[in-house]
Amino acid sequence: MTVQEKLAQLSSYWPRPEEREGPEGGGDGGVAPMEHAFQQGHLGYEEASEHGLGHLTRVFGSAPVSVREGRARLAALQKRLTDGTRTGLPAIAHEECLTGVTAYGATVYPTPLAWAAAFSPDLVRRMAGAIARDMRALGVHQGLAPLMDVARDPRWGRVEETMGEDPYLVGTVGTAYVRGLEENGVVATLKHFAGYSASRAGRNHAPVPVGPREFADVILPPFETAVREGGARSVMNSYSDIDGLPAAADEELLTGVLRDRWGFTGTVVSDYWSIPFLDITHRVAADRAASGALALRAGIDVELPEGDAYPRLAEAVAAGELPERLVDRALRRVLRQKAELGLLDADAPPVPEADGGGPDADLDSAANRALAREAAEASVVLLENRGALPLGPAAEGRIAVVGPCSAEPRTFLGCYSFPNHVLSRYADRGTGVRVDPLADAVRAEFPGAAVEQAHGVPVREEDRSGIPEAVEAAARADVCVVAVGDLAGLFGTGTSGEGCDAADLELPGVQGELVEAVLGTGTPVVLVCVSGRPYALGAYADRCAALVQAFLPGEEGGAAVAGVLSGRVAPGGRLPIGIPRHPGGQPAPYLVPPLGRASEGISNLDPSPLYPFGHGLSYTSFAYTGLELSTEEIPADGELEAAVTVRNTGGRDGDEVVQLYLSDETAQVTRPERELVGYLRVAVPAGASRRVRFRLHADRTSFTGRDGRRIVEPGAFTLAAGGSSEDLPLRARFTVTGGVRRLDGARVLTTPAEADPPR
Amino acid sequence: MTVQEKLAQLSSYWPRPEEREGPEGGGDGGVAPMEHAFQQGHLGYEEASEHGLGHLTRVFGSAPVSVREGRARLAALQKRLTDGTRTGLPAIAHEECLTGVTAYGATVYPTPLAWAAAFSPDLVRRMAGAIARDMRALGVHQGLAPLMDVARDPRWGRVEETMGEDPYLVGTVGTAYVRGLEENGVVATLKHFAGYSASRAGRNHAPVPVGPREFADVILPPFETAVREGGARSVMNSYSDIDGLPAAADEELLTGVLRDRWGFTGTVVSDYWSIPFLDITHRVAADRAASGALALRAGIDVELPEGDAYPRLAEAVAAGELPERLVDRALRRVLRQKAELGLLDADAPPVPEADGGGPDADLDSAANRALAREAAEASVVLLENRGALPLGPAAEGRIAVVGPCSAEPRTFLGCYSFPNHVLSRYADRGTGVRVDPLADAVRAEFPGAAVEQAHGVPVREEDRSGIPEAVEAAARADVCVVAVGDLAGLFGTGTSGEGCDAADLELPGVQGELVEAVLGTGTPVVLVCVSGRPYALGAYADRCAALVQAFLPGEEGGAAVAGVLSGRVAPGGRLPIGIPRHPGGQPAPYLVPPLGRASEGISNLDPSPLYPFGHGLSYTSFAYTGLELSTEEIPADGELEAAVTVRNTGGRDGDEVVQLYLSDETAQVTRPERELVGYLRVAVPAGASRRVRFRLHADRTSFTGRDGRRIVEPGAFTLAAGGSSEDLPLRARFTVTGGVRRLDGARVLTTPAEADPPR
Repeated sequence: MTVQEKLAQLSSYWPRPEEREGPEGGGDGGVAPMEHAFQQGHLGYEEASEHGLGHLTRVFGSAPVSVREGRARLAALQKRLTDGTRTGLPAIAHEECLTGVTAYGATVYPTPLAWAAAFSPDLVRRMAGAIARDMRALGVHQGLAPLMDVARDPRWGRVEETMGEDPYLVGTVGTAYVRGLEENGVVATLKHFAGYSASRAGRNHAPVPVGPREFADVILPPFETAVREGGARSVMNSYSDIDGLPAAADEELLTGVLRDRWGFTGTVVSDYWSIPFLDITHRVAADRAASGALALRAGIDVELPEGDAYPRLAEAVAAGELPERLVDRALRRVLRQKAELGLLDADAPPVPEADGGGPDADLDSAANRALAREAAEASVVLLENRGALPLGPAAEGRIAVVGPCSAEPRTFLGCYSFPNHVLSRYADRGTGVRVDPLADAVRAEFPGAAVEQAHGVPVREEDRSGIPEAVEAAARADVCVVAVGDLAGLFGTGTSGEGCDAADLELPGVQGELVEAVLGTGTPVVLVCVSGRPYALGAYADRCAALVQAFLPGEEGGAAVAGVLSGRVAPGGRLPIGIPRHPGGQPAPYLVPPLGRASEGISNLDPSPLYPFGHGLSYTSFAYTGLELSTEEIPADGELEAAVTVRNTGGRDGDEVVQLYLSDETAQVTRPERELVGYLRVAVPAGASRRVRFRLHADRTSFTGRDGRRIVEPGAFTLAAGGSSEDLPLRARFTVTGGVRRLDGARVLTTPAEADPPR
Repeated sequence: MTVQEKLAQLSSYWPRPEEREGPEGGGDGGVAPMEHAFQQGHLGYEEASEHGLGHLTRVFGSAPVSVREGRARLAALQKRLTDGTRTGLPAIAHEECLTGVTAYGATVYPTPLAWAAAFSPDLVRRMAGAIARDMRALGVHQGLAPLMDVARDPRWGRVEETMGEDPYLVGTVGTAYVRGLEENGVVATLKHFAGYSASRAGRNHAPVPVGPREFADVILPPFETAVREGGARSVMNSYSDIDGLPAAADEELLTGVLRDRWGFTGTVVSDYWSIPFLDITHRVAADRAASGALALRAGIDVELPEGDAYPRLAEAVAAGELPERLVDRALRRVLRQKAELGLLDADAPPVPEADGGGPDADLDSAANRALAREAAEASVVLLENRGALPLGPAAEGRIAVVGPCSAEPRTFLGCYSFPNHVLSRYADRGTGVRVDPLADAVRAEFPGAAVEQAHGVPVREEDRSGIPEAVEAAARADVCVVAVGDLAGLFGTGTSGEGCDAADLELPGVQGELVEAVLGTGTPVVLVCVSGRPYALGAYADRCAALVQAFLPGEEGGAAVAGVLSGRVAPGGRLPIGIPRHPGGQPAPYLVPPLGRASEGISNLDPSPLYPFGHGLSYTSFAYTGLELSTEEIPADGELEAAVTVRNTGGRDGDEVVQLYLSDETAQVTRPERELVGYLRVAVPAGASRRVRFRLHADRTSFTGRDGRRIVEPGAFTLAAGGSSEDLPLRARFTVTGGVRRLDGARVLTTPAEADPPR
C-alpha cells in the first residue's frame, strides 16, 4: 500500500447534508461542534475515497432515510471502495447508538442516566444487545457509545449521556453496555477518553482543572473497567485539555495508560474534528498537518468524521519528519479490526442484503419496545411520597396533567436520540417512532379517571400565557401531575444535551413559576421531573405530595411514569447523581473528602443535596440487619465477604438496591468520605428477606498514593450498608494488614454481589 | 535547650476570650475556623508558657483593648517569658494587618481588591509602611498579611482579601505591600501557600481541583515574586488539599519549591489550627502527634495559633520516631528571626514603653487617614457612564442616597478590619474609628444639594419593608444613588469574608429588588456597588445612568465615592477581576485558553464578563498610538522594549492604566488567550500625551511545558496594548528564537515600566 492508501485507511467520509438528505433539506444546525466551519473544501465521495477509506460516517444517523434507502446508500458507498479502489477494502461503518441506533424509526431507549438509575447492569446488557443486532442488520459495525465519563458538574449539558457521578456505577453499568454491543458483533467505543466531563463550570469543551490523582481515581477507572472487563475494542478521545494538555495530543494517556498499562489492542478514533481543533481551538499545533502528526504520534488511529489532517501527512512522511511506522501502527490496528469484523472476507457483503434473506428491517420491533419499557420502568426514581402515591390503577375522579413535559413526547428522549439529534431540524417528521406523551399515557393508565392536560409553559421560552389554563385545570382536579424538565437538543437548541449547558440548576425557563402557581391551588401536586440533569427542587419539595424523577426515559417513558403513578410499577430506581437543594453552589459531587461536604464553622454554604446519590423510595419499606464480614482482617491482596440482610417490611413486593460503601479512616492522601464499592438490585417479596453477599477484594480499597502510583494502604476501613449514600444504618470495620502494596498491573475492579433466594 | 523548650519555640499562645476581654464579654462567633472546637483543654498562660514560647497570638486583634492596655498586657506576657522561663526568650508577637493592624481604633484601609483596582504598587507600599510603623509601635513584630492567592472563583468569601484574578497584578501589588511591611521592620507573611483560592465551587476549605501546570503557572508566581523580589520573611500554609494532598503536609511545596527552588530562608507558620485539621478534617494523620510530625517534616516551623500538635512531639523525638534535627531546623529559623527582630538584644524591651518616650499611640492619625483616603480614591472604578457623572461639585437640587450601603459604615470595611472582625460581636462598640457613611459623605460633598437617605433593604435579610420609602425618596430626587453590596463578616455572619461564600453572584438578599424598584421610578440611577466580590450587574447595567464599583474602600470610602460622584476625584481605578453579566456559570476567570472563553458552536453559555479585567472609565478619554517594539526578534534569554503613547483626548486631567498583554500564538500546551505582562498607571493632563515604556524579558513568556518544567519556548508572540483586557487597539508581534530554554533557577518575574513626562 502507498502512504496515501495507508492514510486513507485512517480516515473516514461523511456524506454532506446535500448528499445525504435528498431534496428535503435539513434545516440549520449541525450534529457536531462547529460542523459548519468544516463545510468548506469538502470533497465529493469519488475524490475523497480515491485511495480507499477506513471508516464511513453516519450514513443512517445524519438525515432521515428509510432502512431500505440507507442500506442501499451504504452498499453503494462500500461498493465504490471494494470495486473502485486499488486496495478494494470495505470501510467500517460507524454510527451513534447511545439510546439506540440513530436511524430513522429505530427504538429510542432511555438515556444512560436512566440506565444508571436502574442499577441493573444485566438489563443494560440486554438492551445494548438489542441495539447491536439492529446495527448489524443495517450494515453498521461500530457504535460510538457508551460514554464512560463520570458526571462532575451537573451543569454540563452531556450529563444526560453519563451514568452519573459515581465511578463504580459508571464502570459497571457502562461495561454491561459494552458487553451487550461486543457480544453481538458491534465494536463499542468508549468515550470521551478522558476528562471531558470535568470541564470548568460544566461548559462544553472548557479546560479541565483536575489534578493527576483525581484523574486517576475518579475519571479513569470506568474506562479501565470497560477495557479490561468489557473488552471494548475502540476508544474515542476527549475534546478537552486536562491541565493544559489536550487529550488528542496526550501520548501518555492514549498509549501509555490505555495500551501499555491496560493492554488495550483496539483502535482509538478521534472525536469529530478534535484533530483540527488542536490548531484551531487549542493552539498546540501551528497548522493542520502538525495537528495530525501530534494526534497520530499520541495514538489516535482514525480521524473522524472525515480525513482532514491525516491525508495531509503523506508529505511529512515523505520528508522523513514523521516516521512511517506510526502510520503503519495505526493501519495495523484498523486492518485487524476489519478482519475481526469479517470485512476482509470476500464472500460476505459488507452490508446485509436489503431484500430477501436480509434481517428484519423493523428497527422498533415489539421486542425492542418491551425492552425499552422494561428499562424505563426500572429507572424511574420515587424521590418523595407523602402518601399521595400510588394513585391506584382504579383511580377515578379528575387528574390534571400539566407542564411542558406532559404533551411533548420529545421531552422523554435524549439528545443523541434520532428524533432530537436529527429530526428536530426537519419540519413535520415527528419522532419516527411512537412516543406517547405523558398525558396520553396517564389516560391509558387510568381509564376510569378524567384526565385534563395543559402545557402551562414551554420548556425554555419565557411564555407565561398558558399558566392560567394549567392553574384552572389543577384547581378542578383531585390531583395534579406537574411534568417539568428538559427538551434535549444540540448546541443550544435544547436545555440538555451536547452544547446545552446550564448556568445554574434552576428548572429551565419559567417552569418554576408554573410549579409555584399550581402549588398555589391547594390541589395535591405530584411533581414529575423528566430531565437530563438533576435540577434544584428544594424550593418545592416540602409542598409536593410526591416527587418523581425520570431521567429522559425514552419512547416508553410515558407508560413507565404513568405506571409508577398508578402503582402498576413498583418504583425501584435510585439516584445515580444527587438532586441539589439550591440552584447555585455547583459543582458539589458526593464523592469527595470531608471538606468537600458541609463543614460547619468553615463555610456558610451547605452543598448537601436535597436527595443524595443512591436515594430512591419504594411503595414498600426495607430494613437492614446483620451486616457481617467474613473476617476483620485481610492482607493487602486478600478479600472478604460482606453479607447483609434486607427485609421487605411493607405490604407490597418491591425492588431494593442494596448499597455498600467504603470509608478509609486514615490515608496518606485525602480520601472520599465514602465511596460506593458494591451494589445489587434485588426483588424482595412483601414480608420476605434476602441475604446479599459481596466479595470485596483489597484492591477495591486502592487509591493513588503520594508518589502517584496506585496502592493498597494498610489500615482501618469502614464498610457501611444501606439504601442510599446517606442512609447507611449498618457499619462494620475491617483492617488491611501488612505493608503498602503497589498495584501496577491488573487489579480487581469490581465487587461481585449475589443474593440468596427470598425467604 | 531541652526538646520541650525547643518545641515551645515552635508554638504560640492565644489568650482566650475570658482572659483577653475582661468583664465585657465577646458575644458568640469566633475569628478562626472551628475556633470553638478548640476551646476545650485550653491551658492557662503560666502552664502553656512554662518552657517558653515562639509566638504570641493576637493580643490586640481578638478583643477591643486600648493601646495602653494592650501594650501593658503584651509587656506582661513577654515579661513572663523573659523573666519567668529558663530560656528567657521573648516571643514574636503577631497580628492580622491586612487592611490595617487589627487593633481597636486603628486606621482601616481599603481591602486588597481595592489596592489592586488602584493598579498602583507604590501607593500600596506606602500604605503598608504606615501599617508597619503602627504595628511596631504596639510591640507587634509580624503581620499575617498579605494574601498572595489569585482569585479563581468569585464565589469564594475571601475574594475581597485577594488582589484579583491576574497573577501578575497579585504578584506586583502584593510584593509592594510586602516591601512596605518589611522595610519598616515587620515580618510579612505570605498566605495561603498555596491553592486555597481555587477550592471547588469557591467553598471555604473545599478540595482544590487543580493540576500541576495551573498550580505552577497561576497559583505560585505571586508567591515567588513576593519571596524573591519582596523579601518576605514568613509564609503561611493553605488550609486546603490540592488534588488530595493537604498543603500542611506537602514537603515538596513547603520545602522543595519554597526553600530549595526559591531560596526562602524565613519561617513557615501554620494557618490557625491547620495542623490539627490534618487529622480532624483531612484524615491524613491518625492522631494529633502524627499531624504534628507530618507538618514539621513538610516544613511548617511554627504552629499557630497555639501549640496543640507540636508540644506533643517530644515523645516521638524521645522514641526516635521523629529526628530531632527536624525540630532543630525549625528552631534555628525561629531564633534567627528573633535575632533579626532584635528580640535577643537584652537592652531593647520587646514592647515599646507605653508612656514617655514611646511612639504616638494614635493608631488613626491624620497622616494615616490621608493615606486611607488616597488609596480609597485611587481604587474606585467607574464602570459605566451615560453622561450622568460627574454631578459637579456645585450640584444643587435633590439627591437621593438609598440602599443598605448608604448608611451603614461597616459596609465599607473588609472582613479582616477590626470593626468587622471583632467589634461586630460587641454591642455598642461602633467601629472604633470614624467611618462616615456614604449619605453623610455625599452631604459633605454637595453642600448645595438636598440629600435624602433611605436604606431600602438590609444587606442580607429578606426585609422589603423599607423599599417604599426608598422609592419615594428616589422619585422625589433629581438623581438617585443606589448603594448596594456587602457587609463583610466571618463564618456566615456576613455576605463577604472568610467563611462567607456565595452560591451565586446575585446581589445578596433582596437588594436586586431594591435596584429594580428604584429603576422603576424613572429617576436617573447611579448604581454604586460597594462589595468584596464582583456581583452580576447585567440585569441592571443597561438602565443605569452610571455604575460605580468600590471594593470595600475602607474608612475613607464614603468621601472617595462621593468625590467620584462630584468629579472632585477623577476615577482611575480599573477592575482587578471581571464583573459578570449573569449570576451563574462560575467560575469563569479571564486567564484561560480560548476554550475557557465564549466558544460559538460549542457551548450555549457565554462566560464573557459584563465588564472585563482591567476595565474602568475616566471623566476624560484616552487614545493609544505608536506601539513599537525595540526589536522583532529576541533570543530565549533576551529582552525587548515595548513603547506606546497614551494621549488624553478629553477635556480633563485623568489617570490611565496602560496595560500590556501577551499572547502565545502556538505552544506545546494550551496557553491563555492573553495574559497581563505589564501595566503602569499614569497621570495624563488634558490634551497631553505620555510615552510609556515596558522592558519585557523573554522569561515573561515562560510557562510549564509538557514535562512539568518551566520553559521559554521559541515561537511567535503578540503584544497588545490598551486600556483593558478586552480593549486593546494596538498589537505588535515578536519572535523568540533559538531552542527551548529551561528556567530552573531564578527568572525575571516583572516587567519594569516607566513613563516619559507629559508633553
